[in-house]
Amino acid sequence: MKTLQSTPRRDGFRMPGEFEPHRGCWMIWPQRPDNWRFGAKPAQEAFTEVAKAISRFEPVTMCVDRQQYDNARQMLPENIRVVEMSNNDAWMRDCGPTFVTNGKEIRGVDWSFNAWGGLVDGLYFPWDEDDRVAGKVCDLERADRYRLRDFVLEGGSIHVDGQGTLIVTEECLLSPGRNPQLNREQIESVLREYLNVDRIIWLPKGIYQDETNGHVDNLLQFAGPGHVLLAWTQDRADPQYEICQEALSILEKERDAKGRPFTITKLLLPANVRITKEESRGVDRVEGTLPRQAGDRLAASYANFYIANGGVVFPLFNDPNDEKAKEVLEKAFPGREVVGVYAREILLGGGNIHCITQQQPLVSQG
Amino acid sequence: MKTLQSTPRRDGFRMPGEFEPHRGCWMIWPQRPDNWRFGAKPAQEAFTEVAKAISRFEPVTMCVDRQQYDNARQMLPENIRVVEMSNNDAWMRDCGPTFVTNGKEIRGVDWSFNAWGGLVDGLYFPWDEDDRVAGKVCDLERADRYRLRDFVLEGGSIHVDGQGTLIVTEECLLSPGRNPQLNREQIESVLREYLNVDRIIWLPKGIYQDETNGHVDNLLQFAGPGHVLLAWTQDRADPQYEICQEALSILEKERDAKGRPFTITKLLLPANVRITKEESRGVDRVEGTLPRQAGDRLAASYANFYIANGGVVFPLFNDPNDEKAKEVLEKAFPGREVVGVYAREILLGGGNIHCITQQQPLVSQG
Repeated sequence: MKTLQSTPRRDGFRMPGEFEPHRGCWMIWPQRPDNWRFGAKPAQEAFTEVAKAISRFEPVTMCVDRQQYDNARQMLPENIRVVEMSNNDAWMRDCGPTFVTNGKEIRGVDWSFNAWGGLVDGLYFPWDEDDRVAGKVCDLERADRYRLRDFVLEGGSIHVDGQGTLIVTEECLLSPGRNPQLNREQIESVLREYLNVDRIIWLPKGIYQDETNGHVDNLLQFAGPGHVLLAWTQDRADPQYEICQEALSILEKERDAKGRPFTITKLLLPANVRITKEESRGVDRVEGTLPRQAGDRLAASYANFYIANGGVVFPLFNDPNDEKAKEVLEKAFPGREVVGVYAREILLGGGNIHCITQQQPLVSQG
Repeated sequence: MKTLQSTPRRDGFRMPGEFEPHRGCWMIWPQRPDNWRFGAKPAQEAFTEVAKAISRFEPVTMCVDRQQYDNARQMLPENIRVVEMSNNDAWMRDCGPTFVTNGKEIRGVDWSFNAWGGLVDGLYFPWDEDDRVAGKVCDLERADRYRLRDFVLEGGSIHVDGQGTLIVTEECLLSPGRNPQLNREQIESVLREYLNVDRIIWLPKGIYQDETNGHVDNLLQFAGPGHVLLAWTQDRADPQYEICQEALSILEKERDAKGRPFTITKLLLPANVRITKEESRGVDRVEGTLPRQAGDRLAASYANFYIANGGVVFPLFNDPNDEKAKEVLEKAFPGREVVGVYAREILLGGGNIHCITQQQPLVSQG
């Protein structure tokens, strides 16, 4: 694995849209007992269901810490590849590489990772193993990488259409725990170089009380170029209402990199989800790790889904809107099979299906 | 990775000769301080030199424990792939998969590994991580495997010509620490099934005082079908003399699976190599691990070389016979570049270049 000194833009590499063809999907096995209740056993079952659902459409690789290797290898079906990889937690979207391609070769962008805010408001300490994950994935795939030692970013805080457009949130990218030494223009210039985008759309906030400082991937997702699925609520009493209205109003006025207006499809949120007393009791209390307290509101959103080759895997919350979300997704992705996976256990750990997955684009050489 | 219930023979898979084309070479990074002196730092330098030499000819993957990952990644050149893999020690020949192929697909034979003798005369305890290595390598390469839970074997104890012939030693395969419940015929029948060979040649012993119970790969190597390079000494006072004479006399009378007699080329051994006081002092003393004592004779042999695509990488001992070995190898491998690597540090750990490498055959699909 070469560590390149150039940038994807200069080398003619771009980040494809998630809806473009994949070589496969990467995940990390959950295990830390101070984030996942009951020794992560319920979360491991949920991750297994997600991996199984995605593996119906494309190859899945699960990265597993040495301690959990045997258990993961036995819980996961044989068609899922299991590789040993140390980690601090299980969010491959955020610590994994952002793959870029020129159509013939893939490379990884290996951002600096600091657990969503480092010593300012990071969610656990340390995060050194997570920060190595992107490089290890690239090395394993024989892909060269661009390594940004001084620029913090998570894959869940960016969404691209693969045609020059990027959507981010100010809440996240301008947060004091990431790159406080850089202003908005300086951050934009890094994003233009490393994602090879031309038009960057800033929304103010992500989902209410999202512990990632409002990752865009919990708020919306591209269904394709020019088409955005936006999390939505009609409840004016909910703080989320204002956030959704603002995002809609900006997106309605914006144009993408090709000058197109956006088609915006609303994806109704589930009713508020809160941690129960029993769920909270199953989580180890560790200083330096975000506690999981009974009554805490979780940032549940159907927008946090994964687009696979010929499929869409989205979270179910056992909510009346589950069925509505499925209908919206089926309409938005006419060529794909839409599969729901009950995701409460993933949500309890602070994210959802999109957060725990990372696509690897397909290129002609494989 | 599927674990297959059939056998390579039944499925039409065979183990190719090492001289056939490779997809690449696998190694493990040394680190245990009770086997490698001075915290394994000198050994790590030697392994790096071997990896660099082989990587001139074919891709090399180095498997590294989490604790040594950063150091290995920085010591090794960028063109060598580094993947995280727990291990007990660094002998990929012996704990890695024995790859078999039908020309289109590769599969791994995942023998049971017990550190060269288990509780009878094994060299360290435990060996559980080493026993997982073959399966992890197969999974990583998306290769299915045959897993033998009840049959102990190391890759260094077998040599094949890829055309139905296998050479082994009685000292090793009939040792009490491996498969004492099986007699010679039963062992032969396992080897026939899993290596897909028809003719098995038993030599009595390997190199004198070889701690592996006389692995054949330290005594001889195939240069090609029908051509064997045999370690040799002219010193009648050396216990090794009798061993070489016996091996020669058997090989001279034998025929290979195709009915051919063997061409036998002698490869003069270096002068006896013994552990120095200073070398011994650098090794941690741990109960259950073979001690490295000053004055111990080491099983130095030029036969312990690796055949790469277009190359041969062989051990140097700073001995007058180094140059003679090079000449013999150049003559035996006319199409390949013969590269020597100073290997005393590998030898101090109990093996040599062939022991720390494992080839992956090239197949049409990669």
